[in-house]
Amino acid sequence: MRFVIAAGTTLTANIDGISGIGTNRDLIAHVPGGDVEIVEYGRIVRTPIVPIDPDLGPTPAVVTRAVCNLVDCETTIVDAGMMKPTGAPVVDAEVSMGEDIRNRNPVPSADDAFEFGKEFGRSLSEEVLYVGESIPGGTTTALGVLTALGVDATVSSSLPENPLNLKQEVVEEGLEASGLSPGDAAGNPILAVQSVGDPVLATIAGIVIGATEADIPVVLAGGTQMVAAAALVRHADVWDPLTIATTNHIADDESANIEAAAADLEVDLRVTSPTFPEHDHFVLEQLEEGAPKEGVGMGGALHLAEQNGVELADVADEVLGIHREILDQHPEFTYNF
Amino acid sequence: MRFVIAAGTTLTANIDGISGIGTNRDLIAHVPGGDVEIVEYGRIVRTPIVPIDPDLGPTPAVVTRAVCNLVDCETTIVDAGMMKPTGAPVVDAEVSMGEDIRNRNPVPSADDAFEFGKEFGRSLSEEVLYVGESIPGGTTTALGVLTALGVDATVSSSLPENPLNLKQEVVEEGLEASGLSPGDAAGNPILAVQSVGDPVLATIAGIVIGATEADIPVVLAGGTQMVAAAALVRHADVWDPLTIATTNHIADDESANIEAAAADLEVDLRVTSPTFPEHDHFVLEQLEEGAPKEGVGMGGALHLAEQNGVELADVADEVLGIHREILDQHPEFTYNF
Repeated sequence: MRFVIAAGTTLTANIDGISGIGTNRDLIAHVPGGDVEIVEYGRIVRTPIVPIDPDLGPTPAVVTRAVCNLVDCETTIVDAGMMKPTGAPVVDAEVSMGEDIRNRNPVPSADDAFEFGKEFGRSLSEEVLYVGESIPGGTTTALGVLTALGVDATVSSSLPENPLNLKQEVVEEGLEASGLSPGDAAGNPILAVQSVGDPVLATIAGIVIGATEADIPVVLAGGTQMVAAAALVRHADVWDPLTIATTNHIADDESANIEAAAADLEVDLRVTSPTFPEHDHFVLEQLEEGAPKEGVGMGGALHLAEQNGVELADVADEVLGIHREILDQHPEFTYNF
Repeated sequence: MRFVIAAGTTLTANIDGISGIGTNRDLIAHVPGGDVEIVEYGRIVRTPIVPIDPDLGPTPAVVTRAVCNLVDCETTIVDAGMMKPTGAPVVDAEVSMGEDIRNRNPVPSADDAFEFGKEFGRSLSEEVLYVGESIPGGTTTALGVLTALGVDATVSSSLPENPLNLKQEVVEEGLEASGLSPGDAAGNPILAVQSVGDPVLATIAGIVIGATEADIPVVLAGGTQMVAAAALVRHADVWDPLTIATTNHIADDESANIEAAAADLEVDLRVTSPTFPEHDHFVLEQLEEGAPKEGVGMGGALHLAEQNGVELADVADEVLGIHREILDQHPEFTYNF
C-alpha cells in the first residue's frame, strides 16, 4: 500500500484571488514543499514557511500524515514541477513548473509528465495505490483541463467562498491564448494540459494509466482536481475502474457538483468526513468545518483509514500530536500566511 | 527512527580492479540507484540493472529493506552525487558526483555536501538515526580520506580478496595530484574530501554533525567507509558519542583492523552477524559467508533488528521474500554482472 503525493507549481496561483493561500508569491511557492515535508516527516524540515494558519486552518497534509502513521502505508513524493526545494525525498519527474495559463503553451512538458507518470505507475507493485496532490492554484488549472476536454464540470476551492467566476475568466483567457475553444482538446489529454493545465495533473493521469496497466487499483485522493485527472485518463481512452475519495466538504459543494461529474466519467466516488468524536479543539473544528476542504490527499487518507478500521478518534489524536509538534518547533511561523 | 542511505558516485570505481562490482562502467554507475530502489520499494523500479549476482551475492540492500520492513523505521535516501537517475524518492544534496581521485580536486563540492548534511541532520527529530551508504569504489575514497587525515587505518573490500595494494597506489597518486602528503589534511575534513574523498563521505559526516547538534544519537551503519566518515567528524572537532555498527565480516577482516581504528576515534563499535538459523538457501549462505561483506547499511540494519528484538529467522524470511520478488520480476537480469 502506497500513498503518492504529486507536488508542483503553476504560476496561475499568483493571480490575485485564485489561491486560498493568499497573494504572497513566496509563500505560495513554498507550500508544496512544506506540505510534503509534513507528509514525510510530520514536521517542517527545510521549507522556510509552515502551511498552517489560524484562519485558513492546518494544511490537510497533517491528516494524510496522521493516517499514514496509523496504517501500514508507505509514502512517495513525486516532484512534478516544484519551484522550491524541499527536505522531503522526492522522485523527480524531471518536468518544469507550469506557467500562468493565460500565456500560450504554459505546460510544454505535459507529454514528459505523462510519460514519466506511466513509467512510474507501471513499475510499482502495490495492493492499492493512493494518489494525492499539492499544487496551489490547482483547482483553476483543473477547471482549465475540464473545459478544454469538454467535460461538464466545475471545480471547488479551498476558500470558503469559491471564486468560480474569476477561475472561469482565467480559463477563458487561457483557452484563447492557446487558440482553443471549450471541448477542442477532447480525446487529446496532452493538448489539454499543455494549453490550460498544470504538470501535476499530467503526472497523476500518467501514474493512473501506468498503475492500471500493472493491475494496481488506484484511489485518486482529492476533490475536483482528481476529477480533472480522471477526465484526462478517460480522454486517453482508458476505462478501467477508478475511484475518487474526497471529503464531504467537496461533495457538498454545490458550485462543484462532483457527483455528476464522477458519474459521467464512470468513476466510483467515495465521500469521507473529517468528523471527530467529542472534542474541544480548534484545529479539529476547522477540519470539520472545511478549513481546508481538501488537499494533499486528505479525503483519500480518511478513506484509507476507514478501509483499515482506524477510528477517527485515533486520527484526531494523531493529527493533534503532529500539529502540536510542528507549532512547537516553529512558533515564529504560526501566523505567517 | 529513521534509516538514511546516502548514495552517490565516484569515478574512482572505474579503475580496473577497484570495485567489487567489476569493470562494466554502466553497471557501476547504476548500482546506487538500484540499491536505493530496493531499500525503498523492495524491488527494482526504474534502474536498468539488478545488483544481484550468483557469484557476488545479493546486494546488502535486501537486508536493510528486510529489517526496515520488520521494524517501524522510516527510510530516506539522500542523493549525494548519483550519476544516474533512480526511481527511489531522494532528498537532493545538490552536489556533483566525485571524479577519479587520481585527478586534482576530484570533489569540488565537498563543502556544499558538508553544509547540506549539517542542515539536513539538524532539521531531523528522531529517537535514533541510522546512516548507511551506497557508492561503488567507496572503500578506496575512504582510504584516501583516512590517509589524508593521518588516521592509522586501512579499509576493507566487498571482494573476497581485498585489493589493498591497488587502493593504496591509487590513494598515493591521488594525494600527489592534489599536492598532499599523508596527514596533511589533519583537522581539515573538507580538504581531505576535496582531494581524495567522495561526496557521500562528506554528506554523511555533515549529517552526523547536524544530528548531533540536534541531540539525535547516530549509528553509522557500515564498515570502513563509516570509519572514514567518523574520522571526518572527529577532525571537524566534534567528539560527541558515536556508534558504528558493522558486520562480523568487516570486524574479522585483518586487512582492515576496524577495532583499533574505532577505538582511536573514540567510536563505539557494534558487530553484528548475518548468521541465520537452520536453512538451506544459497542466498543466506552467501550472506553468512560475506558475499557481500557489508554495504547499504547492512551491518547497522542487523543492529537495528537486534535492538528491536527482531529474530534473525524473521530477517531471513523477509530477505528471501524480497530476493524472490526481485528475481521473479527481472529474470533477465539475474546474471548481469
